Amino acid sequence: MSSATMLLLFPSVTEKNMVKAKVTLQNNMQFTGTASSGHTLIMDAEHESGGQNNGFRPMELLLIGFGGCSGMDVISILRKKKQIVSGLEINVKGKKSGTAPKIYKEVHIEYVVKGKDVDKGAVERAIVLSLEKYCSVGATLAKTGAIMHSYRIVE
Amino acid sequence: MSSATMLLLFPSVTEKNMVKAKVTLQNNMQFTGTASSGHTLIMDAEHESGGQNNGFRPMELLLIGFGGCSGMDVISILRKKKQIVSGLEINVKGKKSGTAPKIYKEVHIEYVVKGKDVDKGAVERAIVLSLEKYCSVGATLAKTGAIMHSYRIVE
Repeated sequence: MSSATMLLLFPSVTEKNMVKAKVTLQNNMQFTGTASSGHTLIMDAEHESGGQNNGFRPMELLLIGFGGCSGMDVISILRKKKQIVSGLEINVKGKKSGTAPKIYKEVHIEYVVKGKDVDKGAVERAIVLSLEKYCSVGATLAKTGAIMHSYRIVE
Repeated sequence: MSSATMLLLFPSVTEKNMVKAKVTLQNNMQFTGTASSGHTLIMDAEHESGGQNNGFRPMELLLIGFGGCSGMDVISILRKKKQIVSGLEINVKGKKSGTAPKIYKEVHIEYVVKGKDVDKGAVERAIVLSLEKYCSVGATLAKTGAIMHSYRIVE
């Protein structure tokens, strides 16, 4: 997206702490979503809900966002702690309520840290700092349900 | 993504009400995120946070998800009410807390409904039903801040 287009879509995007999104119906149950960073994705309902699975279910974006948010925290902290991390994978699993609104009642996040001689204590502290202090998506999800975490260090 | 790959990434994805995501560090602050529907996106930090803006900021995904979630509700309800809607655009704006965790303290969602002779009452009821009953992303965001809405009907 050009900066001219972004300015058109998000005229006051530079306002402090402000985040914007524009979501547009394409057809049937399919929507595009563009955020103030300029990136675009597709959302769609599943077949049983009249969609064609041409894109993400909106609730999936919360779990991906949680993994990305906490992953950015954890990798930054581990790098500051001079840990040599060759890979980081985060698996997030959410159990939704059976009745509307189908919020997440439980979320489990697993961190798989790859590297040689990575310090267990450093990994633990990085995860706790992210979950208890920095990760805004996690802090949001913690308001509707229990957040559980685990980690593995693999060489 | 092939169904074999999906099964490998998400072996128990068919479990009722369970949603999954796998988030993987690519380089620097860039992560890919794949959800149980099989779709993948890229997340990245902004330049000031050591990223390169090659993808979404994780917190943007919450606002896009909110627009998609409520948009799917509203378009379904309006179609059930036999309204002829030729377009639906949703603008979401979130103001984050100034301190960590930077959750959304205020979110404004604007619905722009396009169509000829679209009934104002039907639009209002569809929005209220979505925000008060069905939209799970909205119900999640409502736990951390105030949700405000507005709408416009344009021909």
